[in-house]
Amino acid sequence: MTEKAISNDSGRPELGVAMVGHAFMGAVHSQAWRSVARFFDVPRTPRMVVLGGRDPERTARAAERMGWAESSTDWRALVERDDVDLVDVCTPGDTHAEIAIAALEAGKHVLCEKPLANTVDEAERMVEAAERARERGVYSMVAFNYRRVPALALARQLVAEGRLGELRHVRAAYLQDWLADAEAPMTWRLRKEQAGSGALGDIGAHIIDATQFVSGQTITGVSGLTETFVRQRPSDAAGGTENVTVDDCAVFSARFSSGAVGSFEATRYATGRKNAMRLEINGSKGSLAFDFESMNELWFHDGEEAPETGGFRRIVVTEPTHPYAGAWWPPGHVLGYEHTFTHEIADLLTAIEAGTPPEPSFADGLHVQRILAAVEQSAENGSKYIEV
Amino acid sequence: MTEKAISNDSGRPELGVAMVGHAFMGAVHSQAWRSVARFFDVPRTPRMVVLGGRDPERTARAAERMGWAESSTDWRALVERDDVDLVDVCTPGDTHAEIAIAALEAGKHVLCEKPLANTVDEAERMVEAAERARERGVYSMVAFNYRRVPALALARQLVAEGRLGELRHVRAAYLQDWLADAEAPMTWRLRKEQAGSGALGDIGAHIIDATQFVSGQTITGVSGLTETFVRQRPSDAAGGTENVTVDDCAVFSARFSSGAVGSFEATRYATGRKNAMRLEINGSKGSLAFDFESMNELWFHDGEEAPETGGFRRIVVTEPTHPYAGAWWPPGHVLGYEHTFTHEIADLLTAIEAGTPPEPSFADGLHVQRILAAVEQSAENGSKYIEV
Amino acid sequence: MTEKAISNDSGRPELGVAMVGHAFMGAVHSQAWRSVARFFDVPRTPRMVVLGGRDPERTARAAERMGWAESSTDWRALVERDDVDLVDVCTPGDTHAEIAIAALEAGKHVLCEKPLANTVDEAERMVEAAERARERGVYSMVAFNYRRVPALALARQLVAEGRLGELRHVRAAYLQDWLADAEAPMTWRLRKEQAGSGALGDIGAHIIDATQFVSGQTITGVSGLTETFVRQRPSDAAGGTENVTVDDCAVFSARFSSGAVGSFEATRYATGRKNAMRLEINGSKGSLAFDFESMNELWFHDGEEAPETGGFRRIVVTEPTHPYAGAWWPPGHVLGYEHTFTHEIADLLTAIEAGTPPEPSFADGLHVQRILAAVEQSAENGSKYIEV
Amino acid sequence: MTEKAISNDSGRPELGVAMVGHAFMGAVHSQAWRSVARFFDVPRTPRMVVLGGRDPERTARAAERMGWAESSTDWRALVERDDVDLVDVCTPGDTHAEIAIAALEAGKHVLCEKPLANTVDEAERMVEAAERARERGVYSMVAFNYRRVPALALARQLVAEGRLGELRHVRAAYLQDWLADAEAPMTWRLRKEQAGSGALGDIGAHIIDATQFVSGQTITGVSGLTETFVRQRPSDAAGGTENVTVDDCAVFSARFSSGAVGSFEATRYATGRKNAMRLEINGSKGSLAFDFESMNELWFHDGEEAPETGGFRRIVVTEPTHPYAGAWWPPGHVLGYEHTFTHEIADLLTAIEAGTPPEPSFADGLHVQRILAAVEQSAENGSKYIEV
Repeated sequence: MTEKAISNDSGRPELGVAMVGHAFMGAVHSQAWRSVARFFDVPRTPRMVVLGGRDPERTARAAERMGWAESSTDWRALVERDDVDLVDVCTPGDTHAEIAIAALEAGKHVLCEKPLANTVDEAERMVEAAERARERGVYSMVAFNYRRVPALALARQLVAEGRLGELRHVRAAYLQDWLADAEAPMTWRLRKEQAGSGALGDIGAHIIDATQFVSGQTITGVSGLTETFVRQRPSDAAGGTENVTVDDCAVFSARFSSGAVGSFEATRYATGRKNAMRLEINGSKGSLAFDFESMNELWFHDGEEAPETGGFRRIVVTEPTHPYAGAWWPPGHVLGYEHTFTHEIADLLTAIEAGTPPEPSFADGLHVQRILAAVEQSAENGSKYIEV
Repeated sequence: MTEKAISNDSGRPELGVAMVGHAFMGAVHSQAWRSVARFFDVPRTPRMVVLGGRDPERTARAAERMGWAESSTDWRALVERDDVDLVDVCTPGDTHAEIAIAALEAGKHVLCEKPLANTVDEAERMVEAAERARERGVYSMVAFNYRRVPALALARQLVAEGRLGELRHVRAAYLQDWLADAEAPMTWRLRKEQAGSGALGDIGAHIIDATQFVSGQTITGVSGLTETFVRQRPSDAAGGTENVTVDDCAVFSARFSSGAVGSFEATRYATGRKNAMRLEINGSKGSLAFDFESMNELWFHDGEEAPETGGFRRIVVTEPTHPYAGAWWPPGHVLGYEHTFTHEIADLLTAIEAGTPPEPSFADGLHVQRILAAVEQSAENGSKYIEV
Repeated sequence: MTEKAISNDSGRPELGVAMVGHAFMGAVHSQAWRSVARFFDVPRTPRMVVLGGRDPERTARAAERMGWAESSTDWRALVERDDVDLVDVCTPGDTHAEIAIAALEAGKHVLCEKPLANTVDEAERMVEAAERARERGVYSMVAFNYRRVPALALARQLVAEGRLGELRHVRAAYLQDWLADAEAPMTWRLRKEQAGSGALGDIGAHIIDATQFVSGQTITGVSGLTETFVRQRPSDAAGGTENVTVDDCAVFSARFSSGAVGSFEATRYATGRKNAMRLEINGSKGSLAFDFESMNELWFHDGEEAPETGGFRRIVVTEPTHPYAGAWWPPGHVLGYEHTFTHEIADLLTAIEAGTPPEPSFADGLHVQRILAAVEQSAENGSKYIEV
Repeated sequence: MTEKAISNDSGRPELGVAMVGHAFMGAVHSQAWRSVARFFDVPRTPRMVVLGGRDPERTARAAERMGWAESSTDWRALVERDDVDLVDVCTPGDTHAEIAIAALEAGKHVLCEKPLANTVDEAERMVEAAERARERGVYSMVAFNYRRVPALALARQLVAEGRLGELRHVRAAYLQDWLADAEAPMTWRLRKEQAGSGALGDIGAHIIDATQFVSGQTITGVSGLTETFVRQRPSDAAGGTENVTVDDCAVFSARFSSGAVGSFEATRYATGRKNAMRLEINGSKGSLAFDFESMNELWFHDGEEAPETGGFRRIVVTEPTHPYAGAWWPPGHVLGYEHTFTHEIADLLTAIEAGTPPEPSFADGLHVQRILAAVEQSAENGSKYIEV
């Protein structure tokens, strides 16, 4: 007889997870929670305990579809459950602070979507809660998933190894086009009270974090300019039209701690660009370029090559020795967007077990928040340069 | 009280699945079986009943890691289980016929990896078994997953809609480089008795199927040329070196049923190309180009555009209206290799439920096998053109 | 007897041309003067009368090599010669005003390299001279040659035809790397008194002109940030090191007359980028992208295409119906950098003959100069936004 | 007094040139003859003595436009003129042998357009004449201009230096689309008696020469397949329609002297491809890729890089140390199609002066002719492999 029943217990302990929010971010986080232990040797196997949401029916259906054992409309009860070890916050930005702080105070690790909060004040309170929790061995992380794109993790390595020399230029843009149509309807992402800001906080936050991560430097000051191209949009909620109260785009210049100069742009009006999160860095010895629409590729110019054979190399970041890639398929069998979240959670679980604070921390999220605020402040003051 | 226990039963009936083989293909099929009902409204939810393999310990570990409830080393018992409705054959090609035929005779649907078999004779017997089974409502499919790359499914649509006009050229290459190093060790893929052929059957089969699928035409004849660059390789099994008994590359010309001319190449010696499965089609009214290393892109030239603004368009195949893409993420949030298998299984489950034979059928697989055999026969006869 | 002596006179009148300066710009202008009547039906055939320079020997050798009948070290005499109808000013920026004004006052048409001058004051005096001359039928043009890249001329057409709808974003960068090496020696281009400014005036001027040309809008205000990364360089002239007195890079934001937002960057420190003059424009109905390193390509996204087949098209701008391209080779037989100057001169000769002021005019050059000055002023004042 | 009259004599002796033919090839050769001494230190300055053609008026106008001192309709007289040192043959292929042999016998150096002739027999007679002439110090060259694309000259260097190791794959295609429209009119290029063959000889000849040049190997055998898609075309000459008597495309496989396997395709039906002369070579240590539509770029993969940072590099072949590039503009200021002819003539003049036979020789052209004939013969015999 050759059959063998698989025990539920692989010898690895489990980690109970609750998630709040089940829209786009909830769906992709769920796929990551389901997949992480299939591909990474994580120290604990996630158990998907409960999904929180507002509407009971929709939340229940989402839980079933996404693989959560239960659903709940009471996030306060959810974060206190004994069988929950970690809370994953996937709600709009205006509720991050409340949920994350409650979870941390209840002794739960927290993974929180970006931007960390809608205001610097909220973010500061979250950092305080995170620091108190950490003293008790409770950890937190903000979900800047682009750090876990293999190509950007490789970019970070190359900069850290000195392959670019002294950095001079950082050039970043995050281009989408889903608002280019002036008739596209109103959404919560266009209301300041819910979203905090527009393109700036939604996608500008990603390139702020990604450039600091890859460069290993912090932004020390900014000069910003923002615009709202379409000031009213059709709204069912408002029964007619509703005012857009956030920026449609933000263009800003920056200086980095080591002297590099940055150029940034975030917009949702770049017709034809779907998710073009682009990054270029030029150093004295080399350069890097990346575009998320071709997320498996990193372009690297090694300035120390002979000029005859020098040029930007298209590295297909799928080799076993590339960050994260060895856990998946053979070279050239490319990864997608969702895998960045699986990597993020693998790193989170590993850090929690090791007792080393996971990155990016809430403090990193707060620093991003301060830069976002400085861009807005500069934009309101004739683009005047503001130190962060 | 807002909590709600999720029932195991979503109202959708389940489909018991057994899989044989747990190497690369087993791992990726498993991810697809786990994910399909999370993203697609499939009529039945797969239940991952049992995984078959040779070594009991390794199979048990694989089953646990990949999410199968049990493991087994007796594939004959496995295909007869009452709780198994479908058998997924992920073993090397020399065992496909035996397992697939037994499963079909036991009344199980079959998904079989490609190439369908190692010989035309085996493939013919599989087709006979598949046709007998189909009369009893038992279905079968060969796993040419590249048909389910969204970009290639879109390519098929554009050709079928007549956007390319009359087809003149089909140009396909499948380029890998994992054998470019003459010291890379021997593997079962280089033994004729296990693999059937080398690059020809392993990756050439994919471009034969993909070009026929996208063009909507069949190949009617071929002229082939093959080569084995490295004739001996280090082998632990052989205790020294072992002879390579398959082709390292195959280059062949073809004619298609409607008169188009084809140029094909399959190799694992294209240094620097990791999984460059490339396809170009030129018609009287337009052209298409694709490279799997950039799998989210389809290049389309509409020859009916004004010359001033004509050019190959880079379509990022992630729009909600693109094939399969609507089930996943927003535009520009790209997919990866594994998703093609999830799409394949979604289509398979839908076809079984609808009682429409899934495609590609075993008969399609047999036709590919006959083309592979004709290429080999031509290569052995001074490249003489052979009708298929 | 079938031989036929070719008369020197094709029936077309000649136009006597003098050029001052014989470095890089002189060489490329000369090739254009020699070639223009071979490919374009210009109303007058240029006669290359005399080349002006400082050093008699070097100027004489340059004249011979570049095809000028005589050489001269006295530009004042040169601009007054009766056999000279047009003066082409290819000297460093600090001498533009003096030479161009003298030529205009002598009744000679003037083609002047960019930037028009080193200061707004000089540029204003040149515009006054140009306007006075124009009343007498004497014309002038500033040599922003990138307007005559066929791809950018096509871009202008597409915007003018409304194919992009309302413009929202203009994104431009001019990236070179010849100063990335901190040991590269001092040159006149790094001295404020000769060059006026650094990357800003040298290459930033090109993208200011090009974006205004393609968009059909003017820049109405800017916020700038500049940096000098390497403040001293080896200098033979100085016998040791010499201070760099210009910017190494300039990053600036802008607003355009119709409300579009601009992002600009000019640098000579972008390691690995050789002459990456890049332009992107996003409008409500479409987008354009260009990179001079691939100068024969324009990327156009028509937002009115069906989403299924929408994407950026790579237009190879070599069709007979494309701007300038019909004068040269068949489609796909690409052009190079020098051809932009031939186009420029063809347009200049045509405009002079037609009595329509050639573009870009000295007034256009002055507007660029004012924007350059505003960027510098903003950079000196904490990036404060400055109306132009 | 600073003016100085330029003498007609630079100290360099002149070389009298006659050209026969003034269509597309005549125009581009003329530009090269006019330009070569402006940019290259050639040992002799070309004097453009006389242009030969059929129609006296059209030839005279062409001579004037293209810069030839005289015109003639008697090529026999032209090749005997005392003031002519070199004859440049730019006529259709059916007249190459007669003109080139007469010129060689008259003691004139010969540059002859490709393919060398329309038949192997003609080519053999030309080689005999060339060898007899060479004994008298009279040289000849066949104008495979693609050897003088800087990127392909660099490719040749990299292969010769061993950077690719042992070559395994050569993959070449020459794709145009000017016949894709079935209503495009008849031309001499579609008549067998004038053109010899269709796509095969016109553009297939280029990729045969280029692959042998870059690889440093010769083709030793081929298997071919040809097709004529549109068998009749509108013809003014025929007053209605006229039969196409040449191939529309040729697909062929080849073996190279050192064991590499080749895949070739030539067509004028690749809708949307304008002049896509493509080349890829894979060796044991590296790979190269090229597409003429981006003629300033060579893609090089160095297989000896670490896998983490390995990838195809886009070399912009405009550095001063790149072949030919130093004679022109600064890095990134790209070249075009016509420059390849200027390079060709510079090499020719240098070789003549040095007394070293220029390459590619007529013998090289004959070898190409034999391969073309073998492809045709194979295509007529069921694609049977034919040794060359």
